[in-house]
Amino acid sequence: MIRNIACNRDFILGSETAKRLYKEHAEKLPIIDFHCHLDPAEIACDRRFSSVGELMLGGDHYKWRAMRSFGIDEKYITGDADFRDKFRKFAEMLPHAAGNPLYAWTHLELARYFGIDEALTAGSADRIYDKCREVLSQPDHSARGLILGSNVEVICTTDDPADSLEYHKQIKDDPSFSVKVLPAFRPDRAVNIRDRSAWLKCMEDLSSDSYPALLSALDGSIARFAALGCRLSDHGLQRLTFRVGDPEAVFKKAFSGEQITPEEEDVYITSLMTELGARYAALGWAMQLHLGPMRNNNTAMLRRIGRDTGFDAIGEPVDTALLSRFLDGLAEKGQLPKTILYSLDGNDLYRLCALMGCFQEGPARSKLQLGPAWWFNDQRDGMEAQLRALANLGILGGSVGMLTDSRSFLSYTRHEYFRRILCGLIGGWIEGGEYPDDPETAGKIVEDVCYYNAKNYFEF
Amino acid sequence: MIRNIACNRDFILGSETAKRLYKEHAEKLPIIDFHCHLDPAEIACDRRFSSVGELMLGGDHYKWRAMRSFGIDEKYITGDADFRDKFRKFAEMLPHAAGNPLYAWTHLELARYFGIDEALTAGSADRIYDKCREVLSQPDHSARGLILGSNVEVICTTDDPADSLEYHKQIKDDPSFSVKVLPAFRPDRAVNIRDRSAWLKCMEDLSSDSYPALLSALDGSIARFAALGCRLSDHGLQRLTFRVGDPEAVFKKAFSGEQITPEEEDVYITSLMTELGARYAALGWAMQLHLGPMRNNNTAMLRRIGRDTGFDAIGEPVDTALLSRFLDGLAEKGQLPKTILYSLDGNDLYRLCALMGCFQEGPARSKLQLGPAWWFNDQRDGMEAQLRALANLGILGGSVGMLTDSRSFLSYTRHEYFRRILCGLIGGWIEGGEYPDDPETAGKIVEDVCYYNAKNYFEF
Amino acid sequence: MIRNIACNRDFILGSETAKRLYKEHAEKLPIIDFHCHLDPAEIACDRRFSSVGELMLGGDHYKWRAMRSFGIDEKYITGDADFRDKFRKFAEMLPHAAGNPLYAWTHLELARYFGIDEALTAGSADRIYDKCREVLSQPDHSARGLILGSNVEVICTTDDPADSLEYHKQIKDDPSFSVKVLPAFRPDRAVNIRDRSAWLKCMEDLSSDSYPALLSALDGSIARFAALGCRLSDHGLQRLTFRVGDPEAVFKKAFSGEQITPEEEDVYITSLMTELGARYAALGWAMQLHLGPMRNNNTAMLRRIGRDTGFDAIGEPVDTALLSRFLDGLAEKGQLPKTILYSLDGNDLYRLCALMGCFQEGPARSKLQLGPAWWFNDQRDGMEAQLRALANLGILGGSVGMLTDSRSFLSYTRHEYFRRILCGLIGGWIEGGEYPDDPETAGKIVEDVCYYNAKNYFEF
Repeated sequence: MIRNIACNRDFILGSETAKRLYKEHAEKLPIIDFHCHLDPAEIACDRRFSSVGELMLGGDHYKWRAMRSFGIDEKYITGDADFRDKFRKFAEMLPHAAGNPLYAWTHLELARYFGIDEALTAGSADRIYDKCREVLSQPDHSARGLILGSNVEVICTTDDPADSLEYHKQIKDDPSFSVKVLPAFRPDRAVNIRDRSAWLKCMEDLSSDSYPALLSALDGSIARFAALGCRLSDHGLQRLTFRVGDPEAVFKKAFSGEQITPEEEDVYITSLMTELGARYAALGWAMQLHLGPMRNNNTAMLRRIGRDTGFDAIGEPVDTALLSRFLDGLAEKGQLPKTILYSLDGNDLYRLCALMGCFQEGPARSKLQLGPAWWFNDQRDGMEAQLRALANLGILGGSVGMLTDSRSFLSYTRHEYFRRILCGLIGGWIEGGEYPDDPETAGKIVEDVCYYNAKNYFEF
Repeated sequence: MIRNIACNRDFILGSETAKRLYKEHAEKLPIIDFHCHLDPAEIACDRRFSSVGELMLGGDHYKWRAMRSFGIDEKYITGDADFRDKFRKFAEMLPHAAGNPLYAWTHLELARYFGIDEALTAGSADRIYDKCREVLSQPDHSARGLILGSNVEVICTTDDPADSLEYHKQIKDDPSFSVKVLPAFRPDRAVNIRDRSAWLKCMEDLSSDSYPALLSALDGSIARFAALGCRLSDHGLQRLTFRVGDPEAVFKKAFSGEQITPEEEDVYITSLMTELGARYAALGWAMQLHLGPMRNNNTAMLRRIGRDTGFDAIGEPVDTALLSRFLDGLAEKGQLPKTILYSLDGNDLYRLCALMGCFQEGPARSKLQLGPAWWFNDQRDGMEAQLRALANLGILGGSVGMLTDSRSFLSYTRHEYFRRILCGLIGGWIEGGEYPDDPETAGKIVEDVCYYNAKNYFEF
Repeated sequence: MIRNIACNRDFILGSETAKRLYKEHAEKLPIIDFHCHLDPAEIACDRRFSSVGELMLGGDHYKWRAMRSFGIDEKYITGDADFRDKFRKFAEMLPHAAGNPLYAWTHLELARYFGIDEALTAGSADRIYDKCREVLSQPDHSARGLILGSNVEVICTTDDPADSLEYHKQIKDDPSFSVKVLPAFRPDRAVNIRDRSAWLKCMEDLSSDSYPALLSALDGSIARFAALGCRLSDHGLQRLTFRVGDPEAVFKKAFSGEQITPEEEDVYITSLMTELGARYAALGWAMQLHLGPMRNNNTAMLRRIGRDTGFDAIGEPVDTALLSRFLDGLAEKGQLPKTILYSLDGNDLYRLCALMGCFQEGPARSKLQLGPAWWFNDQRDGMEAQLRALANLGILGGSVGMLTDSRSFLSYTRHEYFRRILCGLIGGWIEGGEYPDDPETAGKIVEDVCYYNAKNYFEF
């Protein structure tokens, strides 16, 4: 039997100091997962899962991409093959993916949620599949069970302004489930006027036929979100823009179906983002900016299986000059909210950190945050690069730490992975003589980054 | 005596696991050198070399650049100095080049081909020069001897569509030499209409006076190449473009000597690249795209000693949006060939890998490949960065591995260098607990990347 | 008591070889600080400092940014709080800044200049403050005392062409102080016509009412600088440009207060930079190009506390195509001076090194130099990245090494930090078998990079 790497208690904790930091300061802290894509309905109804195949391969485009890269037929990826067969194919691929985060994630998930102590290979796939089925039939392996078993304290989902938030209400009102499941405000359809049909649908959903009406509808949504404990907004932007002009005129043209220019789109987006930023600041919400994806690169597959199926890539680097003007515009009016910057291009890390430093101010600790390594950067190398950039140009001990960004109830192990990497990094500095060998000081940083900073920053 | 670093059996194999992987899985495998710039005539006539000075310094612009950086007079670089004097100057420079790949390459070449066990320095230069002269006079140190001694199974040269391929035929028909020396199809002169005089010469060579005539001439070349076992094409592009239009009209204007706009050039290049891609796909050829050099930066030296003499640099990063549209255009028609992407800008690695993932599909394992670290990236740091990016975003075990890209018969040691680095990387993961300590699984990855993947992918 | 990390004799010297290299070859060499922002008046009058708070926090925007990132009120940063209170706040922040270069710099400064052997924390701040006050009252802790105690041989300040250089003369004529304090020529106000009001003030200061008059005035300044031993110029450019045209016409328009286009600005800048480059070449001066900052991002804070207070960031990457044309224009006429390239964007390292290689020529060793890691890159990671890029694409042993770029008399410890990192890197290569374990050869590189190369390159 080949041993599951995640069954090693000291998994990727390189040094003795790292082991001590992890065990004494990181391991037991609750999880605040301030950004994910879980479906609140599944938590409300406490969804159950029939198999590890469904759970792991039913919606995870990371895994789908890896399987395609290995040459596996689409039938076994998003096609109509049985989940057991899909799992077999995935297991056949996995050992070839040395160095891929999927290798670590999968084994962490198998170890922590299913007690699997052997490596997933073509040879062990069926045995593991069967054992997991057995575990899944136990009462504590429902959606809620997985959350509770992961020591999660807060979950922030990602929600449209037009969403009824009924499931959030339902969860909040359910005394049998104590985990906070809060909405996060993501008005992408309203902001992204470049995608006209989705924008028009959004205006319909928000009953908005003018720019002032839209602002007022969004105010209404924001109040509804706030009432349910929302503390964050989120924006997905292929690229940030900054152009001052008359947003009402642009709205009118776009709403009437006229052609509008890219410059007019920029005017609208700049204005709306600025309006929203001011509202977030007033409420103490954090504003998340996810910058830089290039979506739907494969037209044939888009037609065949739709969006969010593994055909997105990394777009342009962030234009930090435009980003600077956007942040400055808000800051000048005293309306810059707490802001978290994520770029999909790892080359942007130092440029983002340097820019963040220009807008830091109390009383919040690290008012501007460098978001954890995102999507294509969400692996050990990417996380270390993110932590090092932040440490070099900011205050590592002020970071709000990790999130899952995931659609899966098994992804809480990514917090464990992050915590081990964080302890490994700091432990390495201590053993290399770059930071004092004082357990309290280093332990404080670990605890803050793993838990307390998020709690304080978002005011959960 | 200062010892030659390459005489250490465990050269750069950091860990025990790396040593085991290298010795048991990598060391003995044959070499498939699927991209190089060797002159087939020199293999056909089995060229001999008078001295290590000629062999090492006669045409290697990497070494020339290092010598210029050390302040050595051009006389001793490309000038009329004696090769012994050039070698002395090179030897004087080399110890100052700690961390430069030339340090490793030179010592590997001296150790493996000449049995030199001391370091090259100003003090040892003459002694080494004389010993190498002796070795070179032995019958097995001809071009073919060096190839055979390196355990090479396949060599793919780089050839113009108008090339007669006579030397490839000659080598193929020679029963005394069993190494496959195959042409690779590089129609740069035909594609790069931006360099009008070279393009016109190419049209003359291909007897093409219209766009259809050119396509038909290229079809003829492709058939000739295929008949001699060609399995790859190659394109060197300063930057990729994508613009749809009427290529026949552009051809007509350009052929008649009229001025054409950059946009018209883009139309022609887009069309021709797309036509060629479809042909490669039909034949199962791989399409190599070498993107991003900025050539001939030093006008005075260009005038004095010509092209390819060490005055090229790294150009713009790859525009992945254009690259996406190019690949997507082919994929939509089911005509995307196996494709290998090389960028000269190391910052492009993750963006290329992310984009590749959007076009992966079976049955080929890793139909889109990240080319090994190229040119200015061809060093230990660059290779590790390439392997890590690929591992993080793709399937490391699906890579077709290394090539020499070289004009020299001594460069096969670069495969050894790569294999040691690969084993070092995987060995490190295993000893760090990130990959199971199972010799078979890791050994399979090593063997696949070093040899079997290339054999299967290109169908040699 | 938590120990000051810098009190470890082997601070960040990872390997035994590194320790040997540092102790035998690096530690005792004098410092040539060829680029800094010290005020020569303070050296001339041998300024004294009242407290470590004033000395450390009076003007250091690195520290100010870190304090803002920790959420400290501006009152304790640039505000009217007492220096002791500012120091307390700084000390409270510092332990959270693990991995930040400030952590290492501060402890090196406290250890080397004040003999502080405990870590700076909230708990030790007052004790350390008091001990430093005592030390500062000693006669050898004046500006000159700190310089002499740091074994400095040459200091190059940064000076405007209109500067009288009176303090440089005064220092030169003072027989009681033997350290060379030389001016460096920084004509930014004259070059940067984009900032019209500063440019007009400069024209007034230089009594220049035409382009020829300006060139002649600059010739006069250059002669004055040369007479006082100047060996370097320096240019701070947000981005380099290259456009040929009529600079006299642009001057005329700008001088008369007319609007000029960005293209006209480019013409003027290109011409003036080329004229100056030729003059530097004729005198054997080195030309430093500092490329890529994006300044004054926070308008509110600019209004409140002015420039250079910690609100700058990293701008666009260097346009190497334009840089190539600029260097090539000079090289073609045989007028390219020794040139040192600094980019604020760490992603530029390989592109700069590759371009440098196109213009290297004797007799100078490494005529084009990659400047040491600058500003936001000035930390251990940035320095290692700079050294590795240079080693991979150039000749590490030809580098002119480190500088402080600082406004503080305590920053010489950055040379120590650099030397330790350099020895760590080379020591690692030796112990890893990538470079021979020959103390003389490696020691020569260390000594050259730490001292002799700068001495020879600048001809001090």
